[in-house]
Amino acid sequence: MIQPLIWENDTLKLIDQRKLPLEETYVEVTNLEECFDSIRVMVVRGAPLIGFTALWGMVLDIINNPTYSIEQIQKSAEYLKEARPTAVNLAYEVDRAVAIAKEDLGSYEKNLRKFAQEQMDLLHENNLTMAKIAQADLEKRFGDKKLRLMTLCNTGALACGPMGTALGVISHLASQDKIEMVYASETRPYLQGGRLTAYELIKENIPHKITVEGAFSYILENKLVDAIFIGADRIVSNGDTANKIGSSSLAIVAKYYGVPFYVVAPTSSFDMASKTGDEIEIELRPEDEILNALSARIAPHGSGALNPSFDVTRAKNIAGIVCEKGLIADPITTESLTKIVES
Amino acid sequence: MIQPLIWENDTLKLIDQRKLPLEETYVEVTNLEECFDSIRVMVVRGAPLIGFTALWGMVLDIINNPTYSIEQIQKSAEYLKEARPTAVNLAYEVDRAVAIAKEDLGSYEKNLRKFAQEQMDLLHENNLTMAKIAQADLEKRFGDKKLRLMTLCNTGALACGPMGTALGVISHLASQDKIEMVYASETRPYLQGGRLTAYELIKENIPHKITVEGAFSYILENKLVDAIFIGADRIVSNGDTANKIGSSSLAIVAKYYGVPFYVVAPTSSFDMASKTGDEIEIELRPEDEILNALSARIAPHGSGALNPSFDVTRAKNIAGIVCEKGLIADPITTESLTKIVES
Repeated sequence: MIQPLIWENDTLKLIDQRKLPLEETYVEVTNLEECFDSIRVMVVRGAPLIGFTALWGMVLDIINNPTYSIEQIQKSAEYLKEARPTAVNLAYEVDRAVAIAKEDLGSYEKNLRKFAQEQMDLLHENNLTMAKIAQADLEKRFGDKKLRLMTLCNTGALACGPMGTALGVISHLASQDKIEMVYASETRPYLQGGRLTAYELIKENIPHKITVEGAFSYILENKLVDAIFIGADRIVSNGDTANKIGSSSLAIVAKYYGVPFYVVAPTSSFDMASKTGDEIEIELRPEDEILNALSARIAPHGSGALNPSFDVTRAKNIAGIVCEKGLIADPITTESLTKIVES
Repeated sequence: MIQPLIWENDTLKLIDQRKLPLEETYVEVTNLEECFDSIRVMVVRGAPLIGFTALWGMVLDIINNPTYSIEQIQKSAEYLKEARPTAVNLAYEVDRAVAIAKEDLGSYEKNLRKFAQEQMDLLHENNLTMAKIAQADLEKRFGDKKLRLMTLCNTGALACGPMGTALGVISHLASQDKIEMVYASETRPYLQGGRLTAYELIKENIPHKITVEGAFSYILENKLVDAIFIGADRIVSNGDTANKIGSSSLAIVAKYYGVPFYVVAPTSSFDMASKTGDEIEIELRPEDEILNALSARIAPHGSGALNPSFDVTRAKNIAGIVCEKGLIADPITTESLTKIVES
């Protein structure tokens, strides 16, 4: 398993995801400013991993400044949030650090170290639970045979830290030699699939092929895939799921061919206040991501691009939603989803 | 309109499609060897355009060697075929040249010049006919409103010479100010949409945005597109259509949202000997096209790729097939298709 974040001898080591997959280097972080930079320039990406990075940054800050007051800790927290102002996990985790300081300033460093490690352990535990729930459902459908699975974007250790969500299911199955082939959809424009998921699959020796999003129908019609696993950025109460652009098209094509399409996400990604996917606002990202492939210009000067970052996969096209509390399926409704989330 | 092939003062000028869209240069071809090279290294692409290039190459050959015998002309023809051995149009056109020589060697040069020009005029006429048939059907559906259309790959003048097929429909409508927006799907891995279709749209001042294949569902669910037009590499007798990878996924998603999906192709692309799309063999192209974007490596070393070049769009997901003899629709069956093709 890749370790995108290593805490060792009071130093934070982060794999530089900007250089993956062709260069594998670690950045060493020893203070708050370096932590801020690592988040801002995207040495780390993926909501959970950004949150953990920030927590260890707060630990470094108190190690370097053992006499800090609550106000100084608060100032550090606010500073760190500015590294990626829209990252919800980042704000959530540093606010927790401040709360721990307020509870007992004398034991802050000790308690924060413990909390940071526990958060990572909890995510690992939850993701492992999800992988086991997914495996049980796959065994019901396919028995003991080795599986051919497909995924989109990157939902692995590189996004989560200790273990992935959708890619975590695949890693878990591979550790038991239950994977025949993984199709990693490259995920234009940013190529998280072709670069990062492929990198994780290489590191774990899992047989795989990269494909383009245009090949969805070809792959499923030719029965190359038993089931599809994706992550989620947000799941609303009726099961509609926002995820990386391409997910909804893949779910529609999967439904058409009768291939089960699973979403794997912890209950922290559930937004029970929204009723349907229509309430999810989709981020339109810079056109340049499409007009260029990595740094090479591909489109004519003068052409524009439409670059939605996410799309909404309707619950009716999802075979099952896996969270750490169980499987929501047959059918996915506001009732069945609420029952599991509140259990 | 772009002129990818210009015959002027007994010289053939070919726009160098390898350098598009960022550089617009013409290659001058004055003899058979230069013609061979232009086809082989893909200065020109697109089946009809390759055929026309070869015809003018045969004209250059007889201008340069006015005393050639039938055998020498035949030798030139066989040589030219080797530039792209699998290009059906290339072989078809140079064989026609040989037949013209055999008919009347004394008038060969004059007759071949006439034939080459006639072939280009005929394609232009047929493609214009198809555009008008498509326009009539669009007017039935949408009345007089300006349209928002989507296309995949490149099916324009750059592929065909004088006028395109699916992109020809769009050019034709744009010439009457009937286009509000064109969504050009970039068409990974080779990016014919993002590079070549976008280039043609820029040259013709047609408003457009480039999108990724992953955005099919987002675009159609958000009602950004009235209708979709693609070309075809092969249409079999029940209407199943082989076209660039991505076409079948797009057709399934279009059907799901109720957006009409048209195929535009001359009867010369119809393969009445094959019953269904299951008989179409799909070319698997080099993995490197996916593992690299243009010349930049994007995937980890060690990763493989699955790179089908085409897919099969089932007739049931096609709203209409437009050929120069008419529209096949409501429903597309072997009977309705045969009736039009044989008319």
